[in-house]
Amino acid sequence: MTQRPAVLIMQRHLAPLSGFLESAYDVYRFWEGPPIEAAHDIRALIVAGEAPLDKALIEQLPNLSLIACFTAGYDGIDIEWCRSRGLPVSHAPGVNHEDVADHALGLILSARRQIVSGDRQVRSGEWKVETRNITASIGGQKLGIVGLGHIGKAVAKRAEAFRMTVSWWGPRPHEAEWPRADSLLALAKASDILVVACKADESNRGLISREILDALGSDGLLVNVSRGQVVDEDALIAALKSGALGQAALDVFIDEPTDPTRWANVPNLVLTPHTAGATTAGVQGMLVLLIQNLQAHFAGEPLKTPVA
Amino acid sequence: MTQRPAVLIMQRHLAPLSGFLESAYDVYRFWEGPPIEAAHDIRALIVAGEAPLDKALIEQLPNLSLIACFTAGYDGIDIEWCRSRGLPVSHAPGVNHEDVADHALGLILSARRQIVSGDRQVRSGEWKVETRNITASIGGQKLGIVGLGHIGKAVAKRAEAFRMTVSWWGPRPHEAEWPRADSLLALAKASDILVVACKADESNRGLISREILDALGSDGLLVNVSRGQVVDEDALIAALKSGALGQAALDVFIDEPTDPTRWANVPNLVLTPHTAGATTAGVQGMLVLLIQNLQAHFAGEPLKTPVA
Repeated sequence: MTQRPAVLIMQRHLAPLSGFLESAYDVYRFWEGPPIEAAHDIRALIVAGEAPLDKALIEQLPNLSLIACFTAGYDGIDIEWCRSRGLPVSHAPGVNHEDVADHALGLILSARRQIVSGDRQVRSGEWKVETRNITASIGGQKLGIVGLGHIGKAVAKRAEAFRMTVSWWGPRPHEAEWPRADSLLALAKASDILVVACKADESNRGLISREILDALGSDGLLVNVSRGQVVDEDALIAALKSGALGQAALDVFIDEPTDPTRWANVPNLVLTPHTAGATTAGVQGMLVLLIQNLQAHFAGEPLKTPVA
Repeated sequence: MTQRPAVLIMQRHLAPLSGFLESAYDVYRFWEGPPIEAAHDIRALIVAGEAPLDKALIEQLPNLSLIACFTAGYDGIDIEWCRSRGLPVSHAPGVNHEDVADHALGLILSARRQIVSGDRQVRSGEWKVETRNITASIGGQKLGIVGLGHIGKAVAKRAEAFRMTVSWWGPRPHEAEWPRADSLLALAKASDILVVACKADESNRGLISREILDALGSDGLLVNVSRGQVVDEDALIAALKSGALGQAALDVFIDEPTDPTRWANVPNLVLTPHTAGATTAGVQGMLVLLIQNLQAHFAGEPLKTPVA
């Protein structure tokens, strides 16, 4: 029997993967202590794409030959750096974009139709006979999508069923069923609701800036299902507090878990704990791709879903 | 100048209508005290359809000639009794069904993707590194619609964009794009999510009984955007507490505003304060129909939207 490859799981919230990997691999868990004695054995790192890659650790693993990213996004991973070291990177694309789009629509409806605040109102006894919460109809609202990839397209299709008008912007023009705005600023100016659905990387950190939030405006709603870093979070908080921005609904944050005191006095806000893609089917799909990529790699075959 | 007709607004939450009616009518407000001195002048009653009609009052208004229901639903109005007294009834159909359907989808997504509970989790600091809320995908869930009228059809169209499978039941078979279940019980058994979207009347009080909730089951979600009385609320509370029913999301209640202590210890529940149809466009549409019906009636012309 040949020696089993050793793999190292980096983030604690990926702990449930251990049970699926132990039949084929020796599994180390970084949060149980750095695997100093196993440094020469570890051949693959299993990481969450949003976590910054620990380059110092990698330099201490001489036989590391794969970065296996469990998620679709890999914004924490310096792909150029990995490439320069001959380290291939795999990820899990196209698995949970429908779920993320479902959640994005849930955030739009929860914010616009006051479902989260309405629930609080009923439970606190603030609903009185004379209370009337009148909101704008979803139908006819202009939806701007930042990044028309798998997720953006899935959001657009759902939005049409709600009779919203869809347009989008991304840095690269491409053929699409929906019109592309000339710029992100133009998209924000023209939109009632802006959904951030782009891939996050170093090039778009803080893309949703104060200027963009001001353009979206005092009746506007910002939804983020991409990554926290794409939005200037301090500018967002200031814009909600001043009323320059109408509402926000966020599934992702610069630091996760986000510090709740940061949001305590910020009005017109819906917050979810990075659950947009966290479905049973989505997680199973990511697990299948992870195992397929590990198997292919250790069999000397091409990765099933390498980072392009 | 002829004498202006007098109208009586019955429910306090309809108070904002006064401003739109005073240019053409003498407006009385019931909650300011019974209009004893004007009893002979009052020719139309303006009512919310969910409120029980005050028959004793009506018998004291000898010149009353119209019940103008502001809403689409008129479940509080005994239509047969009105007919037997020669009292026509108008209402506001087809105005806000798209908004109600939007809200129904918002309730489905809020409950199924844990948006309301997720918001509480983030704000309370319960979101930890090791927290993972995994939910089922919306896609592939079986949606059963009780009552395939304007609202039910609008719910079905949206549900298809979320890749749900749609079927329905109503007491009367009719042509539809979606299959009709043999019975409500069969629909509940076959569904993951049951949306109550039927017209409420005396025939369907308590229709969603303990038996139906049990059939929907421990993973099932009940959504009510119809009227509170259609659901056996005590059975619903018991089913949620015992786990016989998975989740519920309610916009309507037997008593409104509902007593929050009634729901305090009931798990897996989203509550909104009867806002499904309460949009700017919806309210404007209802107002336009109210005014058109009053004008037609006092001009001796057929009502624009009589209750069928």
